[in-house]
Amino acid sequence: MLETTVAAIRPADETAMAAARELHGRLTKPAGSLGVLEELSVRLAGLAGACPPPLPEPAAVAIFAGDHGVHAQGVSPWPQEVTAQMIGNFLAGGAVVNAFARQAGASVTVVDVGVATPLPAEPVAAPTVLDPAVPRLVVASVRRGTRDLAVTAALTRDEALEAVHTGIRIADELIDAGAGILLTGDMGIGNTTPAATLIAAFTGADPLDATGRGTGVDDPTYAHKVAVVRAALARHNPDPADPLGVLAAVGGLEHAALAGLILGAAARRTPVLLDGVIAVSAALAAAAFAPAAVCAMVAGHRSAEPGATVALRHLGLDPLIDLGLRLGEGTGALLALPVVSGAVRVLHEVATFDSAGVAEK
Amino acid sequence: MLETTVAAIRPADETAMAAARELHGRLTKPAGSLGVLEELSVRLAGLAGACPPPLPEPAAVAIFAGDHGVHAQGVSPWPQEVTAQMIGNFLAGGAVVNAFARQAGASVTVVDVGVATPLPAEPVAAPTVLDPAVPRLVVASVRRGTRDLAVTAALTRDEALEAVHTGIRIADELIDAGAGILLTGDMGIGNTTPAATLIAAFTGADPLDATGRGTGVDDPTYAHKVAVVRAALARHNPDPADPLGVLAAVGGLEHAALAGLILGAAARRTPVLLDGVIAVSAALAAAAFAPAAVCAMVAGHRSAEPGATVALRHLGLDPLIDLGLRLGEGTGALLALPVVSGAVRVLHEVATFDSAGVAEK
Repeated sequence: MLETTVAAIRPADETAMAAARELHGRLTKPAGSLGVLEELSVRLAGLAGACPPPLPEPAAVAIFAGDHGVHAQGVSPWPQEVTAQMIGNFLAGGAVVNAFARQAGASVTVVDVGVATPLPAEPVAAPTVLDPAVPRLVVASVRRGTRDLAVTAALTRDEALEAVHTGIRIADELIDAGAGILLTGDMGIGNTTPAATLIAAFTGADPLDATGRGTGVDDPTYAHKVAVVRAALARHNPDPADPLGVLAAVGGLEHAALAGLILGAAARRTPVLLDGVIAVSAALAAAAFAPAAVCAMVAGHRSAEPGATVALRHLGLDPLIDLGLRLGEGTGALLALPVVSGAVRVLHEVATFDSAGVAEK
Repeated sequence: MLETTVAAIRPADETAMAAARELHGRLTKPAGSLGVLEELSVRLAGLAGACPPPLPEPAAVAIFAGDHGVHAQGVSPWPQEVTAQMIGNFLAGGAVVNAFARQAGASVTVVDVGVATPLPAEPVAAPTVLDPAVPRLVVASVRRGTRDLAVTAALTRDEALEAVHTGIRIADELIDAGAGILLTGDMGIGNTTPAATLIAAFTGADPLDATGRGTGVDDPTYAHKVAVVRAALARHNPDPADPLGVLAAVGGLEHAALAGLILGAAARRTPVLLDGVIAVSAALAAAAFAPAAVCAMVAGHRSAEPGATVALRHLGLDPLIDLGLRLGEGTGALLALPVVSGAVRVLHEVATFDSAGVAEK
């Protein structure tokens, strides 16, 4: 499934991009006055192979949740149970991602790809795939948390592949149900440590530049976290030309599944709006599998995690918003969604100088 | 009316701000992980004098339109008729501001405070004050364009005051109709020249730093524009302690009306989301009338016009988004609106650690 998905990913359609640029020049606004939105709409035309590209709606957030053996190294101040507890919060609609998704009219799908502790009971109501009101749980657990990457490979190659396949499957399911854009979300206590390790492995960045404070660790814990990342790289010596091997050695199940989601979206020529540092670490893996997958990626925001900026630079992506967020869950992607929608909407709805009877300069 | 409005503007409510900070610490997210949104929600609690502050909805865009005698100096490549033609485009729903307003569910009110050429015929349908589907025209023309500020005062003090009063009246009307947030919009060929002059007058910045290329002038026109701003400052020597005098000497009717809108919103403890360089030049005037009016201001975006950054720094405001926009109309404010809504919504809808049964670190 991974191979056929990668094979289906095509470069951007230059004809559609040229048509979008030409259309922008005829719309009732000074040329270039929409700044970043103009080039974004051109990219999305290239992805869709159509001008205008379809409006990116409805939007679907996919939150992949997993736990991490490296939590045993004391890289996070939060107990591991919080991953499962937050899934309960997502399903009850009480988390920040739920508030932002309701505002944006986006559906929320929570996917357990490897939570260590028991999940809360599922809600009684069985939502449809793209229900914007009721979050949905998909159980696709590969194992109850990864192994400790400080000691051994976090996953076997088969386990990593299974998580990638889950991500592809979720992308297909959401797009089949009509989603016009996918938004990445994540939950996993300790998951910024594998994210930093993935970013260092794929970009060659020093662990000090790739590692951040996650949910807010103190100075000694931060120094320890950097040392754990550095030691993991030395132990596993991950090869960026073998993305599955990298994901298995130093990744997480949610990171692998997110890489699959991104590949699945790209294969379906559907934009995928990236959230924060977990998402962009997974995006590096997706780009290593299929460089053209970058055409489907839109960087939602610049996470406060420094590794996110390292990864975005490597991908050649500029984030749409920069508000110092470091929450994850998909919150930064949701805040950026109206910018993406607005960029595309301009090509659909704005009058031309000619049609509106407005003089040109 | 200006005096009573200014007298009604109060500083932020520290008790409500403290309550918002305390509530943020109990919500199911790491402390501080929502970055800029947390302090924004605290500011809005202080403005409303309540925690949580009301959701900023419905949103109302007010586009003030005027023409400029300084157009005769050749500071813009666009013909002056475009101001009136674009009003026609706004009322027909064909401009970028309309596309973004429809997306955001915001109403659009277009106010002629001083357009030079004849307006298009009004649409037959008479929309209600906050109709999100049909734009509304208000004719409150003070005069058919300002005088040329390169030659004489752009306005008399009485004319400037009349425009300020129109802005206050529109703010009251929109808030009386139920608007939870006002968004500034503007239209006026040549209006970045008075904006740059206002910014230089109120901040003391050099005209070279306060002046930008507007809708896109070439190098010789840009140099000429800077020289026009510099000469206007030398001729009028505007006193920043006399904001009405500054607006009259070197401002525009839409700038004066926007200052009034901002003061009117502040007096009603209603947030006003600033668009680009025209808005922030008017915000400087509003802050000169009433320093506490800054509490009601939210900087929507960082315009590509350099003067906007000069003005925002003077006001102590950080913009929410930075996408290289330089269109005006209210487009940047509309793109930032979901960030403001999201920031407030978190205080309304997100569960606490206690209520959600999530462990703390």
